[in-house]
Amino acid sequence: MDNEIRFAERLHCAMESTGSVVCVGLDPVVEKLPGRVKERLGETVGAVDEFCHGVINAVAGRVAAVKFQSACFERLGTIGLEVMHARMAHAASVGLAVILDAKRGDIALTAGHYAAAAKQSGAHAVTLSGYMGVEVAEPFLKLGLGVFLLVRTSNPEGDRIQRAKLEDGRTVAQMMADETARLGAGWISSRGLSDVGAVVGATQASEAAELRARMKDQVFLIPGYGAQGGTKDDIRVMLRPAIKNGERAGTSGVLVTSSRAIIYAYEDPTWRGENAGRHWTEAVTHAAVKMTEELREVVG
Amino acid sequence: MDNEIRFAERLHCAMESTGSVVCVGLDPVVEKLPGRVKERLGETVGAVDEFCHGVINAVAGRVAAVKFQSACFERLGTIGLEVMHARMAHAASVGLAVILDAKRGDIALTAGHYAAAAKQSGAHAVTLSGYMGVEVAEPFLKLGLGVFLLVRTSNPEGDRIQRAKLEDGRTVAQMMADETARLGAGWISSRGLSDVGAVVGATQASEAAELRARMKDQVFLIPGYGAQGGTKDDIRVMLRPAIKNGERAGTSGVLVTSSRAIIYAYEDPTWRGENAGRHWTEAVTHAAVKMTEELREVVG
Repeated sequence: MDNEIRFAERLHCAMESTGSVVCVGLDPVVEKLPGRVKERLGETVGAVDEFCHGVINAVAGRVAAVKFQSACFERLGTIGLEVMHARMAHAASVGLAVILDAKRGDIALTAGHYAAAAKQSGAHAVTLSGYMGVEVAEPFLKLGLGVFLLVRTSNPEGDRIQRAKLEDGRTVAQMMADETARLGAGWISSRGLSDVGAVVGATQASEAAELRARMKDQVFLIPGYGAQGGTKDDIRVMLRPAIKNGERAGTSGVLVTSSRAIIYAYEDPTWRGENAGRHWTEAVTHAAVKMTEELREVVG
Repeated sequence: MDNEIRFAERLHCAMESTGSVVCVGLDPVVEKLPGRVKERLGETVGAVDEFCHGVINAVAGRVAAVKFQSACFERLGTIGLEVMHARMAHAASVGLAVILDAKRGDIALTAGHYAAAAKQSGAHAVTLSGYMGVEVAEPFLKLGLGVFLLVRTSNPEGDRIQRAKLEDGRTVAQMMADETARLGAGWISSRGLSDVGAVVGATQASEAAELRARMKDQVFLIPGYGAQGGTKDDIRVMLRPAIKNGERAGTSGVLVTSSRAIIYAYEDPTWRGENAGRHWTEAVTHAAVKMTEELREVVG
């Protein structure tokens, strides 16, 4: 690892300085982009670049992190990946923690190559699948990157695998939580948080408290808030026990992701009705600030 | 799905025409490339391109498939991916089945983007992680791509997850096998094989027969042969029951991968001792043919 700030520290700083536990998901799909962006640029990759540029500037200083959905850029070909790398550098330069949502996961030697690629891309952290063993994360950690291991996802198809019961009484997701905590214990930052985080869906709140009990030092990257049905109460049960009375964003251990409800906020009929003529990025800022404020009721 | 040949059919043809169940893994790492390739080109990406070009031509017509390790190309940046795409097209044009080893796996909407990216890349099939549910494969199948779901991997770190016992007596890997077979039943080709295959490591032969009993119509993509300790006997227990007496490569249901032992065959001291001055690609051809012949004792 070089002398760069570690991920858990970086995220802590971003959360404290913005007072936000929000992570904005960048999942751009060209059909959904604002008309003005599409028309002005006249070509897909340029439109996606312009759109991400607008979203990043609209949320900088107001949320802690952005999460780039690799698939949305990969499908645009290598030029799409170049846009993603440029926007990652841009996001980092305006103080956002940058997460690459690529759900990689392979044996040590191959993981080393993925880690090198992620480091070069400019990401501060990546999402990973631990099915081949949570040790797939080690090459990333050794390069100073944070990781978020898939523990419990919010899609219903995940239930058949993740809720399966082991003979020792744990579910598969609980076993993955224990594995994540085991690996993460070796990567605790001075703030008490681990560089090894976990993906835990907001729509599985009944299970989330149990997972928190197993992963006390992990940052939970929580998809599914808002558009996918997750609520403030779902987030509350995922807070770290130490801060249950909720002072500080930076040590809360939750990083709550929203994509569509923020990046496509200009499509919201209410917004459009009341704000005709305002720039689309204002809707994005408004939605990001509103989500941060909602979550301040949970994390003060 | 368009009118292109389906993956299971394509693989069957490639196996029958070459009489080989071998898949050559392209995991190029610049430090390992032949001196002449490195020197002549003087730069990393060009050397990797030249190397893959040489390997593909050396094994065309002699093995059924090639598997591109996405990580090795991703770490070279977007130009590395362009090289991979060009070499995939090259491999397909010389009759090889082309597998993209990327171990993706995400919820339906995102999986759709990954599937579009894989289709554009020129791959015929991809490796996937089913931790979020085996349904992550559906968008790929709908585009006519084959998939290989991770069931049992050959790395020791995978044991803690994959060998965990469920309360119903199955291991996690056996559960994933049942899920794979369930999904695959909807995607059977006219040859009786499914477009949904499974990754099953060759070093877990004791478990492999049990997995075969659960996945009768799946092609097993088998890493770990040779360099990683897998043997002919390990492969024998993975044959489909229908062909246990072993007539035909195309219906055997096994696709045995080797990377280092073939692509870096010129490093073998025995080869070097006996073949000083011969071109490095001759060593690659020799190793691919030798592996095919060894496996003919298992699959006639």
